[in-house]
Amino acid sequence: IRSGFAEVIFCSGKADEHLRQIVGKLYEEEGEVFGTRASKEQYEMLKKTYPELEYDEISGIIKIEKKGKKQEGKIAVCTAGTADISVAEEAAQTAEYFGSRVERIYDVGVSGLHRLLARLDAIQSANCVIAIAGMEGALASVIGGLVDKPVIAVPTSVGYGANMHGLSALLTMINSCANGIAVVNIDNGYGAGYMATQINRLGVRHE
Amino acid sequence: IRSGFAEVIFCSGKADEHLRQIVGKLYEEEGEVFGTRASKEQYEMLKKTYPELEYDEISGIIKIEKKGKKQEGKIAVCTAGTADISVAEEAAQTAEYFGSRVERIYDVGVSGLHRLLARLDAIQSANCVIAIAGMEGALASVIGGLVDKPVIAVPTSVGYGANMHGLSALLTMINSCANGIAVVNIDNGYGAGYMATQINRLGVRHE
Amino acid sequence: IRSGFAEVIFCSGKADEHLRQIVGKLYEEEGEVFGTRASKEQYEMLKKTYPELEYDEISGIIKIEKKGKKQEGKIAVCTAGTADISVAEEAAQTAEYFGSRVERIYDVGVSGLHRLLARLDAIQSANCVIAIAGMEGALASVIGGLVDKPVIAVPTSVGYGANMHGLSALLTMINSCANGIAVVNIDNGYGAGYMATQINRLGVRHE
Amino acid sequence: IRSGFAEVIFCSGKADEHLRQIVGKLYEEEGEVFGTRASKEQYEMLKKTYPELEYDEISGIIKIEKKGKKQEGKIAVCTAGTADISVAEEAAQTAEYFGSRVERIYDVGVSGLHRLLARLDAIQSANCVIAIAGMEGALASVIGGLVDKPVIAVPTSVGYGANMHGLSALLTMINSCANGIAVVNIDNGYGAGYMATQINRLGVRHE
Amino acid sequence: IRSGFAEVIFCSGKADEHLRQIVGKLYEEEGEVFGTRASKEQYEMLKKTYPELEYDEISGIIKIEKKGKKQEGKIAVCTAGTADISVAEEAAQTAEYFGSRVERIYDVGVSGLHRLLARLDAIQSANCVIAIAGMEGALASVIGGLVDKPVIAVPTSVGYGANMHGLSALLTMINSCANGIAVVNIDNGYGAGYMATQINRLGVRHE
Amino acid sequence: IRSGFAEVIFCSGKADEHLRQIVGKLYEEEGEVFGTRASKEQYEMLKKTYPELEYDEISGIIKIEKKGKKQEGKIAVCTAGTADISVAEEAAQTAEYFGSRVERIYDVGVSGLHRLLARLDAIQSANCVIAIAGMEGALASVIGGLVDKPVIAVPTSVGYGANMHGLSALLTMINSCANGIAVVNIDNGYGAGYMATQINRLGVRHE
Amino acid sequence: IRSGFAEVIFCSGKADEHLRQIVGKLYEEEGEVFGTRASKEQYEMLKKTYPELEYDEISGIIKIEKKGKKQEGKIAVCTAGTADISVAEEAAQTAEYFGSRVERIYDVGVSGLHRLLARLDAIQSANCVIAIAGMEGALASVIGGLVDKPVIAVPTSVGYGANMHGLSALLTMINSCANGIAVVNIDNGYGAGYMATQINRLGVRHE
Amino acid sequence: IRSGFAEVIFCSGKADEHLRQIVGKLYEEEGEVFGTRASKEQYEMLKKTYPELEYDEISGIIKIEKKGKKQEGKIAVCTAGTADISVAEEAAQTAEYFGSRVERIYDVGVSGLHRLLARLDAIQSANCVIAIAGMEGALASVIGGLVDKPVIAVPTSVGYGANMHGLSALLTMINSCANGIAVVNIDNGYGAGYMATQINRLGVRHE
Ligand SMILES: Nc1ncnc2c1ncn2[C@@H]1O[C@H](COP(=O)(O)O)[C@@H](O)[C@H]1O
Ligand SMILES: Nc1ncnc2c1ncn2[C@@H]1O[C@H](COP(=O)(O)O)[C@@H](O)[C@H]1O
Ligand SMILES: Nc1ncnc2c1ncn2[C@@H]1O[C@H](COP(=O)(O)O)[C@@H](O)[C@H]1O
Ligand SMILES: Nc1ncnc2c1ncn2[C@@H]1O[C@H](COP(=O)(O)O)[C@@H](O)[C@H]1O
Ligand SMILES: [Mg+2]
Ligand SMILES: [Mg+2]
Ligand SMILES: [Mg+2]
Ligand SMILES: [Mg+2]
Ligand SMILES: [Mg+2]
Ligand SMILES: [Mg+2]
Ligand SMILES: [Mg+2]
Ligand SMILES: [Mg+2]
Repeated sequence: IRSGFAEVIFCSGKADEHLRQIVGKLYEEEGEVFGTRASKEQYEMLKKTYPELEYDEISGIIKIEKKGKKQEGKIAVCTAGTADISVAEEAAQTAEYFGSRVERIYDVGVSGLHRLLARLDAIQSANCVIAIAGMEGALASVIGGLVDKPVIAVPTSVGYGANMHGLSALLTMINSCANGIAVVNIDNGYGAGYMATQINRLGVRHE
Repeated sequence: IRSGFAEVIFCSGKADEHLRQIVGKLYEEEGEVFGTRASKEQYEMLKKTYPELEYDEISGIIKIEKKGKKQEGKIAVCTAGTADISVAEEAAQTAEYFGSRVERIYDVGVSGLHRLLARLDAIQSANCVIAIAGMEGALASVIGGLVDKPVIAVPTSVGYGANMHGLSALLTMINSCANGIAVVNIDNGYGAGYMATQINRLGVRHE
Repeated sequence: IRSGFAEVIFCSGKADEHLRQIVGKLYEEEGEVFGTRASKEQYEMLKKTYPELEYDEISGIIKIEKKGKKQEGKIAVCTAGTADISVAEEAAQTAEYFGSRVERIYDVGVSGLHRLLARLDAIQSANCVIAIAGMEGALASVIGGLVDKPVIAVPTSVGYGANMHGLSALLTMINSCANGIAVVNIDNGYGAGYMATQINRLGVRHE
Repeated sequence: IRSGFAEVIFCSGKADEHLRQIVGKLYEEEGEVFGTRASKEQYEMLKKTYPELEYDEISGIIKIEKKGKKQEGKIAVCTAGTADISVAEEAAQTAEYFGSRVERIYDVGVSGLHRLLARLDAIQSANCVIAIAGMEGALASVIGGLVDKPVIAVPTSVGYGANMHGLSALLTMINSCANGIAVVNIDNGYGAGYMATQINRLGVRHE
Repeated sequence: IRSGFAEVIFCSGKADEHLRQIVGKLYEEEGEVFGTRASKEQYEMLKKTYPELEYDEISGIIKIEKKGKKQEGKIAVCTAGTADISVAEEAAQTAEYFGSRVERIYDVGVSGLHRLLARLDAIQSANCVIAIAGMEGALASVIGGLVDKPVIAVPTSVGYGANMHGLSALLTMINSCANGIAVVNIDNGYGAGYMATQINRLGVRHE
Repeated sequence: IRSGFAEVIFCSGKADEHLRQIVGKLYEEEGEVFGTRASKEQYEMLKKTYPELEYDEISGIIKIEKKGKKQEGKIAVCTAGTADISVAEEAAQTAEYFGSRVERIYDVGVSGLHRLLARLDAIQSANCVIAIAGMEGALASVIGGLVDKPVIAVPTSVGYGANMHGLSALLTMINSCANGIAVVNIDNGYGAGYMATQINRLGVRHE
Repeated sequence: IRSGFAEVIFCSGKADEHLRQIVGKLYEEEGEVFGTRASKEQYEMLKKTYPELEYDEISGIIKIEKKGKKQEGKIAVCTAGTADISVAEEAAQTAEYFGSRVERIYDVGVSGLHRLLARLDAIQSANCVIAIAGMEGALASVIGGLVDKPVIAVPTSVGYGANMHGLSALLTMINSCANGIAVVNIDNGYGAGYMATQINRLGVRHE
Repeated sequence: IRSGFAEVIFCSGKADEHLRQIVGKLYEEEGEVFGTRASKEQYEMLKKTYPELEYDEISGIIKIEKKGKKQEGKIAVCTAGTADISVAEEAAQTAEYFGSRVERIYDVGVSGLHRLLARLDAIQSANCVIAIAGMEGALASVIGGLVDKPVIAVPTSVGYGANMHGLSALLTMINSCANGIAVVNIDNGYGAGYMATQINRLGVRHE
């Protein structure tokens, strides 16, 4: 099927030689390349062959992007804490690469509600909201109750104690009583950015 | 906020008197009423006061609906087995109540792939797909790979053995490698129908 | 040790004869009696011997209470939904029996934030807050961020799906990032009411 | 809200530059700084800019504290073993930073009951007790039965085998049959010290 | 092998006809019969054929025992609460049937330490101690620290909340830091009584 | 018993001296040697004594094999992704060592169904199929529905998030609704290759 | 695909009308019918329309079978206890229905090894062995070490305590160190009988 | 209490200075020293002060032992595999240090039953048997059925896949249907050796 989405490379665990080949092949076919979970070592290795390659250390994204691409509609990417930003950037940059306009609303966790409420307009005006949180993961429920657009919840593995590497936040989000929330895998910023783009495209098609 | 969604009653566990009051209040305000997880006893109790109330035994939905409501866009509701149909009907009828057009594609589980492939056109033409499965829950991944629209996966508790009342299917779906899938709670047909409608509305707004 | 707390009877699972004896013995010693988790059958059995016994069907509390007891200080008992009220009443009535003044703030779950914010003054003026919620259990975190007094979080077993009979809510609450929250067992309204009273007493001693 | 508690820095995982900024900002605003879970590397990095910074290797606490602060009331901090002391110091020093007087009662685990009973007076005279234990975590229950003030139980991750990184101790504590116990996250000494201070303040306000 | 232990019948789930046959066969061979987990219905059914059969409703034990059997040595059977007594009686009566002298020390849970300490002599003079507890299961650790003979810990499924039907107590006991404790299955009074007898026999052989 | 299978060495965790002895003893007795999970260091250590030793870095297999061994029948080894190939090679080379002919069908995961269907003939013509997948592990169910020979499913630990190191894929496979599937341990390529050979031998005995 | 296996009906949870239709349709097409997990009520309902229907109360199998069907090869069906026999009969009768000869070897659990060893010849002469056990599930490992044919392990849910409804036995079997074992779902006698037949057919094809 | 057991040092995680002090104190008081879980670094550090200190690299035991101590009675220490020997040596040497005679019976796992049966006499003649196994952990059940003395089962964390670091083996052993088995923590050789000595002493007291 023609999905309208270019292929993305999941770099983690790929051998150098193998990775260089995929990057080469995609670059040739698409004229641009986008990879997630790249280590600094992988970036530096690839940089030798592709000097135009960019690297974002926070999210681990590598990319060569065509100039002048348009970003339409709007996706709001929200995080509970600053430790969730690496996942948030994976989501945000994935969505942008696929043509969505993204607004970042970071560090608005529910134990400091005023910061969240201060950004409410920005959140409510999006076609789709991505809510990213670790530990108790309550952000998705609160946002879900405040917006009438679909919310994609991303549990993160950051934290300690009984967070069980993100399973705790996943359960919180899956059990949410707010309407209009669905959940992707722990730390799966990519998946959230992808699906949010599918939703955003439905909204922008005839804006 | 104005969500554009009428309130829905979660009947399970509500005392008779309490339930009758909520039904009454909503009916008065909205001119229609929609409740999920109602037992036959609850239906019969309410029927005495509201003879126009309808009951669907499979999904446990009670409803008094306005005449002539329009159903727009398209949501495909798919199940792996026949035992998943009660959850599917909760999803489908919720979406219909909120104004979505629904196509039902039941009993297309992945161990009989030809039945799924035979219905592919119907699935691919929807704005949003709901994939419902218990036990191994593999349906969402296969559909996710075949469509370019968002897929909402609903794990069900039906089955036996190591299905752990739906947790197994939930884990399968959350771990899906297909693009464009997010997951709601076990047996939460309502939640899937609600969010699918949010997505479908984005698609229909200017069709 | 002299704890200043009369003994409370955990009625669930006690044989009739055994229960009547304990009630008798405590009534004699204390001039009042308080029991939790009593079934209607147990109440009716005891009522024959103790006609002054009262029964609260919602919480399952049986009680013969001295007249004119003072209720001091303030504990705020909050629930996310109406289904959590049976646990809330166990907490509230336990605290009242032990001499605390209680304010009930029910059905203020985080997916409808405005209802919670509307009651904020009542919550913030308590010496101790009890936050009761099932499913995603996010209420404790939000309240924790809004008050500067200790919050006792009570997960409840109500709900369905991946709530795992309250374990999900327990994990949410234990992982809370808000300051000043500690958690008691699933459905343990009694334990929350007891500890809240210990805290409240510290606050009222010289008010 | 004005909580009467200065902000505390959770250092673990913060980038050097980011950490230095927060320390600077807080120091400027409050005239003192308190951080938990700092590595020796983080301390040495900060030390260059803030030579007055102190570091406690056992708990990982960094701090610049105002002179002459008063410590009032009393919190008893108890541990089952010596391996729990790092968590205990996080709790104790947090409470002291916030103005509580703390008495340390370490290595009084329940498999050597005489050591615990020898310190009973010290424990019973506190406004609030913090009970810290890993592995079987039985300390909280025993202390809970011996004091009439609130007990905050902290499970620790130390140990091996089926301790499941502290989940075992957490479950023991949550299931405690003693009155007046509530539980915080695994290794969360900070959270226990914070809430114990909230409780202690209620007790000291008019001592 | 000749174990010196007569066969015991696990009645739960056995069909009437099947159960009657086994009882008949063992009675014929051994001149006595001992069965655990028998329902009242099973007892009444068997009673018709074996009028000398006795039934203990608390433990569910059925038995026809030879007269004049000697009970030697000593096993102390301890419980935390009264709800653990059915398991305790299964343990105690099994041990007695196999020729051990048993002392019962019930309702000495660790949240009321004085009751336990009051019975210490009785516990310390046994060849083997059985410690039975549900919920937090802390009894075994405390006893383990007070005696120098082997302690067999039996977790019970009684309780509610996060006790997970006894798994919580099992984990507490397995993680015990006291010396000389080993654990049998949840509610397995029989297994504890059996192994305690093996140990007791070693002690009595030449007393 | 004479199983018709030479002994295989599980190298992981074996001390150098111990490993060299086993290799030596087996080589002497059988004239060939086969080991799994060998590190590069172990290989290089052994290479000094056995220069004819071969090493496959992907699977960690070391081997000295007799010349001219026949490979009969057919086993199809399928993987969902490229990250599963190390487990697949362990399975494939084990089966080949034991005399099975193997066809490799890699990277045919269910989110790209066309690639799987393109190889269907190769899969259907085997006596036994090995289906290897991590994350959601849905491959086994789909293959199970497409072939009439036994399918051995191997969950792998590759992935991240809620894959729980392979437990998620294991549960998916155990819960499969397709006929003719059984499951081996996570990453147990060896076990799958062994059992597939037992099955394949039944099929080739009289081909 | 043509699998050579007639369709089997999973009766559990099917509505009467729906069940009668499937039975009718299959009987018409195949001239015989086979259903698992049928209740006595379902049997009696169907019996009215199909007086030739047989019912096995132990396994819950309903069946109308053609006369004179041949049973070839050999499958050994072994159980650890008598409580596992209902699952064993589901396996055995499924295999027989599909044309396999079955030998039943029941109640040969590993805590009474002599009974197992006494039947070793019968087990070793089969083309495939099904090992069925609950609780500790050790039977599969012991048999796996004694035979050179594939062993299909079936965990059962019978038992109590920490058996976790069969998950414990499942884990034991999946972790087996014996060669040639694979595992199906808890209580899935049908699945074992089906796959054993696939294997047995390979062995008998040219006997 | 006077337990008749010298104190043992758990070295893992102890700081150098702290460890040296405890060793010094115990050596002075007892004239001998015994420590478990010591690293090579800890040994070499201590060796400088105590040149007579011995170290066993397999078990991590450090020791200075009095000359001419008697070893009485008999404990059989059995392991399933060679990877379990480090735990076995912790058990065996602990028991020997406390005065028990130990017979080692290693690598007799149940998938090679003949090796176990060949050593049966040695096992049956002990006062107590320690059964040590990882992965499926079936050894305890098989031994339990073959001896009439108490069996202490020790699950080990060695292995991979679904062994869950020993939890799997723990569950197998706890669920054992053999009579006379109790379980200690994962890898807790020390605890098994201690309790086995308590049992063995009962047997030797008057031999
Ligand atoms: N960070 C990510 N998390 C999950 N899936 C990803 C991620 N990045 C890429 N993917 C998916 O992985 C596919 C590539 O996987 P691979 O064939 O292993 O490189 C892409 O087409 C995406 O569907
Ligand atoms: N079947 C369902 N599953 C989950 N949530 C539901 C369902 N039906 C209704 N709801 C939600 O529950 C809310 C009503 O809950 P309550 O106040 O308990 O009646 C509705 O507004 C919906 O958000
Ligand atoms: N609802 C409750 N939940 C937990 N503990 C309770 C509850 N009600 C009473 N208790 C405690 O149980 C004790 C009595 O237990 P018992 O001896 O079994 O009757 C009381 O003294 C309380 O500590
Ligand atoms: N390997 C071990 N596993 C578990 N407990 C041990 C071990 N070695 C020693 N111990 C126990 O730990 C106690 C010493 O603990 P500590 O005070 O932390 O040194 C000893 O008295 C023993 O009861
Ligand atoms: Mg919403
Ligand atoms: Mg897709
Ligand atoms: Mg607060
Ligand atoms: Mg107390
Ligand atoms: Mg002891
Ligand atoms: Mg098949
Ligand atoms: Mg074998
Ligand atoms: Mg035995």
